Amino acid sequence: MELRACLIGFGKVGRSFASLLIKNKKILEKINVEFKVVCIYTRKYRLFNDKGIELDKAIFSLDNLGERFDDINDIMATKNIDFLMDFSVSSFTNGEPGYSLIKCALNNGINVITVSKAPLALHFRELIELAKKRNKILRYQGTVMSGTPAVNLKEILPSLVVDKIRGILNGTTNFILTKMEEGFTFEDALFEAKKLGYAEEDPSIDIKGIDSAAKLVILANTYFDENYSLENVKISGIESISKGQVDEATKNKSRIKLIASAEKDNLIVQPKMLKDDDIFFNIIGINNCVEFDTQYGRILLSGPGAGALNTAYGAFSDLILSIKQIFNR
Amino acid sequence: MELRACLIGFGKVGRSFASLLIKNKKILEKINVEFKVVCIYTRKYRLFNDKGIELDKAIFSLDNLGERFDDINDIMATKNIDFLMDFSVSSFTNGEPGYSLIKCALNNGINVITVSKAPLALHFRELIELAKKRNKILRYQGTVMSGTPAVNLKEILPSLVVDKIRGILNGTTNFILTKMEEGFTFEDALFEAKKLGYAEEDPSIDIKGIDSAAKLVILANTYFDENYSLENVKISGIESISKGQVDEATKNKSRIKLIASAEKDNLIVQPKMLKDDDIFFNIIGINNCVEFDTQYGRILLSGPGAGALNTAYGAFSDLILSIKQIFNR
Repeated sequence: MELRACLIGFGKVGRSFASLLIKNKKILEKINVEFKVVCIYTRKYRLFNDKGIELDKAIFSLDNLGERFDDINDIMATKNIDFLMDFSVSSFTNGEPGYSLIKCALNNGINVITVSKAPLALHFRELIELAKKRNKILRYQGTVMSGTPAVNLKEILPSLVVDKIRGILNGTTNFILTKMEEGFTFEDALFEAKKLGYAEEDPSIDIKGIDSAAKLVILANTYFDENYSLENVKISGIESISKGQVDEATKNKSRIKLIASAEKDNLIVQPKMLKDDDIFFNIIGINNCVEFDTQYGRILLSGPGAGALNTAYGAFSDLILSIKQIFNR
Repeated sequence: MELRACLIGFGKVGRSFASLLIKNKKILEKINVEFKVVCIYTRKYRLFNDKGIELDKAIFSLDNLGERFDDINDIMATKNIDFLMDFSVSSFTNGEPGYSLIKCALNNGINVITVSKAPLALHFRELIELAKKRNKILRYQGTVMSGTPAVNLKEILPSLVVDKIRGILNGTTNFILTKMEEGFTFEDALFEAKKLGYAEEDPSIDIKGIDSAAKLVILANTYFDENYSLENVKISGIESISKGQVDEATKNKSRIKLIASAEKDNLIVQPKMLKDDDIFFNIIGINNCVEFDTQYGRILLSGPGAGALNTAYGAFSDLILSIKQIFNR
């Protein structure tokens, strides 16, 4: 069976996803799927190739791998697309371009897998309901904790009631705080995070706590079945954390962590002082974690929360789970 | 749709499972399933009721809730059973009675959900292959970390390659070690564990590391796709850990934990001294955890590892996932 996809964005995450498709070709063959990327849409390129874009070449350059098109909406409406893979960087002001692209896809009967936080942090319920109405898949593991399955965990925990969520949901700020404990200044730690490719395009999104808040909204909506938006989160970032405060914490056998927490109608992102007996105490560097308080006790999941390959794996695992779901394979 | 189940064992876990069925009736109705327990088989009772045993009564007493039968194999062969729910306590010597009951069920085209470790720790591949051959489900989340989805996690992580597994897999020993740090003697801590219902029927199974080893075998076989058995594990328990050793560890900012670890052909259960920067350091009491080293980094899952209700929830989640899998709901 042939499945045709349209990729939005082809930066580090999009290219990592392409490399995962190449590397895991056999896994797709095993479930009888030929997965063709027929369209790649970026700021610079609008590329369509009905036979499938050659991904091994695309990773290096998109030049001459297809025809140029004018309107992505046209492509989605007319070219038999099965999956929209959204790797766009969308704005936290209005959720664009992801918000409109996801809606257009679902309205055209196209399944959506997104790693873009803003559309879901601003319009969660609308998009979920639209997917339900159109009987299409909308998956978004890559939006929270990248490849560590904080979102998809819900599927293997049927009828679980989550009362409270607490997490370290941003890799960059956790990395910066860890580096500051090691003696780096805030600026040097941020520079290091950028160099290693962990920081978002605009690092203030990380540092001011907006990225954590967006992820918290997505988790809270997923596990509480609510319709929170970014504006419902009280947010403080780590921008005013000084070297002196970090040293003071270390002296008291404590650590400052940017903690995101959600209980019914109470969503907060703020730096918190954690004692050394806190289970989050040893979550360091780019690692993220999330803790769910449930009727059967407290469950913790931790793993890498940043990195292009990890985020791409989030989308890849969503793709495989979608295919299994649709075709019962 | 009516689904008919046979329950093996009706101790604390079996009764907790029955209470979960009652409490979650709506969830089953929502997926259009009427789940009937038509048979309960224990050491004392052999109960069959074609209309379904009344579970709200069964939780208190099994008297007069059905007809007595002679042969459980007969029931499985002739009474249109869809699910065998195995809550038996099986022997680590030969895996019985679970081993034979699971085989009988699969051979009669019955799906199996088990929380019994011994059959899988001794005959893993044989049972998995038999289920595959008969095109039936064999699920076993409840065998490892009870309701914390250490087994089922694999399903949401497609194409993940796990190189190494490390875990604290036994709630009782972890509870005892935590209590010893608080000042209890080994004997008092064990007494407390029994009182709270954490210890296995035969506590030496926990204390000598056999329970941990069985879980390690099940995890290693699941994630490495191997066919290890209990005899492949080098096992030392906590029976010779003294109060002095625990105090010495505390003085050195360390903790003694019973660690189960698996790499290719190298399965070990042994007490280990963990420094306070180890991510397992703060896993205390009956909590369990498991860490997977993968091609995308290290993923940690932690949660309650003991308790009848948690184990029953492992089986209940397996049941819901099975129904979704079979009927694509």
